[in-house]
Amino acid sequence: MGIVVQKYGGSSVATAEHIKAVAERIKKAHDAGSSLVVTVSAMGKTTDRLLRLAGEVSREPSPREIDQLLSTGELQSVALLAMALHDRGVAATSLTGPQAGMKTTGRYGSGVISEIRPDRLRGLLDEGQVAIVAGFQGENALGDIMTLGRGGSDTTAVALAAALGAERCEIYTDVDGIYTADPRVVPGARRIPIISSEEMAEMAWRGAKVMHPRAVELGALYGVEIHVRSSFSEEPGTIIREGKKMERLETRETLAGIVHDLDVSRITLSGIRTGPGTMSRIFTPLAEGGVSVDVIVESAPKEGASDVAFTVGRGDYEKALKLAGEVAGSLGGEVEGEEDLGKISAVGTGMLNRPGYAARMFASLGKAGIPIRMVSTSEIQVTCVVPAGRVEEAVRILHEDFELEEMEERDV
Amino acid sequence: MGIVVQKYGGSSVATAEHIKAVAERIKKAHDAGSSLVVTVSAMGKTTDRLLRLAGEVSREPSPREIDQLLSTGELQSVALLAMALHDRGVAATSLTGPQAGMKTTGRYGSGVISEIRPDRLRGLLDEGQVAIVAGFQGENALGDIMTLGRGGSDTTAVALAAALGAERCEIYTDVDGIYTADPRVVPGARRIPIISSEEMAEMAWRGAKVMHPRAVELGALYGVEIHVRSSFSEEPGTIIREGKKMERLETRETLAGIVHDLDVSRITLSGIRTGPGTMSRIFTPLAEGGVSVDVIVESAPKEGASDVAFTVGRGDYEKALKLAGEVAGSLGGEVEGEEDLGKISAVGTGMLNRPGYAARMFASLGKAGIPIRMVSTSEIQVTCVVPAGRVEEAVRILHEDFELEEMEERDV
Repeated sequence: MGIVVQKYGGSSVATAEHIKAVAERIKKAHDAGSSLVVTVSAMGKTTDRLLRLAGEVSREPSPREIDQLLSTGELQSVALLAMALHDRGVAATSLTGPQAGMKTTGRYGSGVISEIRPDRLRGLLDEGQVAIVAGFQGENALGDIMTLGRGGSDTTAVALAAALGAERCEIYTDVDGIYTADPRVVPGARRIPIISSEEMAEMAWRGAKVMHPRAVELGALYGVEIHVRSSFSEEPGTIIREGKKMERLETRETLAGIVHDLDVSRITLSGIRTGPGTMSRIFTPLAEGGVSVDVIVESAPKEGASDVAFTVGRGDYEKALKLAGEVAGSLGGEVEGEEDLGKISAVGTGMLNRPGYAARMFASLGKAGIPIRMVSTSEIQVTCVVPAGRVEEAVRILHEDFELEEMEERDV
Repeated sequence: MGIVVQKYGGSSVATAEHIKAVAERIKKAHDAGSSLVVTVSAMGKTTDRLLRLAGEVSREPSPREIDQLLSTGELQSVALLAMALHDRGVAATSLTGPQAGMKTTGRYGSGVISEIRPDRLRGLLDEGQVAIVAGFQGENALGDIMTLGRGGSDTTAVALAAALGAERCEIYTDVDGIYTADPRVVPGARRIPIISSEEMAEMAWRGAKVMHPRAVELGALYGVEIHVRSSFSEEPGTIIREGKKMERLETRETLAGIVHDLDVSRITLSGIRTGPGTMSRIFTPLAEGGVSVDVIVESAPKEGASDVAFTVGRGDYEKALKLAGEVAGSLGGEVEGEEDLGKISAVGTGMLNRPGYAARMFASLGKAGIPIRMVSTSEIQVTCVVPAGRVEEAVRILHEDFELEEMEERDV
């Protein structure tokens, strides 16, 4: 049997009891003959506790030292998990990111994996050991620890699977897969057994919290099959694999699901003079200020002036409003902000050959009297920004109108 | 000015407030122009907490994984201390043991420093930075983390001072130096301003807890001057430096101090057949069993049989009794154990040319009716094993009879 990479999140290793349960699961897979590489996050609230300490000793902790500090959370989990495996008679060795050959580049706090040198990992697998790798970290060219930033633990797992040519990468989390909509909002939401990497990446970007889009995209790039499963059950979960692109035109007209996000604010620059370079003048300062911009809409110019609107998360709202206000002023226009918005996206490769999906979506929302503030579409998704208070209602309506509950098993 | 190595123990960095206080002290030394290398232990009870977790996931945690786990405590302290220094405008970089070039050999959990490659440390000092090194750890030939075992943090500091040719090594602790006796037992005990490495090593082995003898001996070996000071005061502390050996015979007849230890158990093998190799037959199994033996006394053989007695700490008592019992049986003798003993040692190079010290010690104890169970002497110390309940009384009597309270400043 081939190599399997498993990843367990912080809630799966939150206590000694949790760690023992994870060890049992690993033992089962090991006894069944898999060559296992396991990557683990820090225990439960460890990272929060360490960040609080950092805040107590320093007003503005240096990113390098934050990385040095935070990386210890994962080191503790891997050592404890190795011990729990030994106790069950399973040979296992824990490795720090650097020991596992994870090389990183980029900035402290948001490192990027540049290379994995898996010699030591392969050596352990050859000995029949379970290799347990501290997630979320690697070593840069200076020999310093870097953390990988958002989605770093999922990304570690997928990158390891790619580097080792693993059969699959299993992501264990606190839910049992990807659903056609958030089951807390839509009780009839179905688990999606198989989804394409492209669809999954869109769903992740658009608000599905289960897996980070960065890891999904890395999986797509290297053709890694990802299984999302619950660490607390034996349910089969969701399989994410490369879409069969050549067959797309034959695909049944189906959606993968509806995702939503309640953390949306909109900023509108109105009456600004437009010309070549206007968009760059608006968005370069935002990018330099570290603001993540999501949906962008530009109205058709009228008498040399137009409106540009974009959305950001709550955390970036004040900063974005200030920066956009400065640009708007210099372009003879005004800025306006609106908080408490949300967005709903319908995602699926089935939309590719059916442009009517967007129209059906607008009609469904319109019939319910839900105002659409912004629209953004791409090949495989349609996103509508609506008032936050109407988002859950909108998700339920779309899930029903698109008949996601009744849909048959679909192929990707 | 030269390089100064400072070491702060776990109680000195127990909370964010403590860490900030340590940072202030480092800033002062840095502003005064010293090139500083600082090594720190894990915060307060961190190590205990991690060991408890290990005990919860495993009945017999592997030493390698324990080291991987425990090393994180120091990593957290160094990162937090670096942040606190940045906040005070002091350039500082934290380093793990491996990053600081600490190479180790030996067994996990009791690593020995084999080499220090101080290139990165020197680079930081050349840039005017404070280098903060995680104590108690290094990297073995496999690239694995090893902790240094008992006294490892003090040893890290002294080894760094030796490798860097530092002017001195400052050990900050919760007491303000070495005393002529434990001040909690003898209120009139005096702080010793200067003590020789030899005397300090004896005092440390005989029960003085302030510094670990391993670090003292390393300091003696490399001629590192060690200052023991309180991290909570500005008192001058105690200076440990190489004794002026050539002048010994001229030295005034003085003692350094009286140390005591309440954790002593005695095991006696009586009536055993003696011959060449007997001692080895007794003590080899103990050494292999990891039992630390302290005082050993063999009575003169009578009719081919003799008694051998030795002392061990409470933690090793049961194991030692069992192992010694097996040997005693095979040698035709019996074993007997006695717990609740203690020992008192008078230490000082002044004893070298005054063999009368032992006699005075026996006389003082005898006059007070304190029974002496065992005696051990060396060039610079006399140790008596007495009932634990009489130890403190004995310390007070000897401190007074040897006039340690009135003694003038002494040279070493």
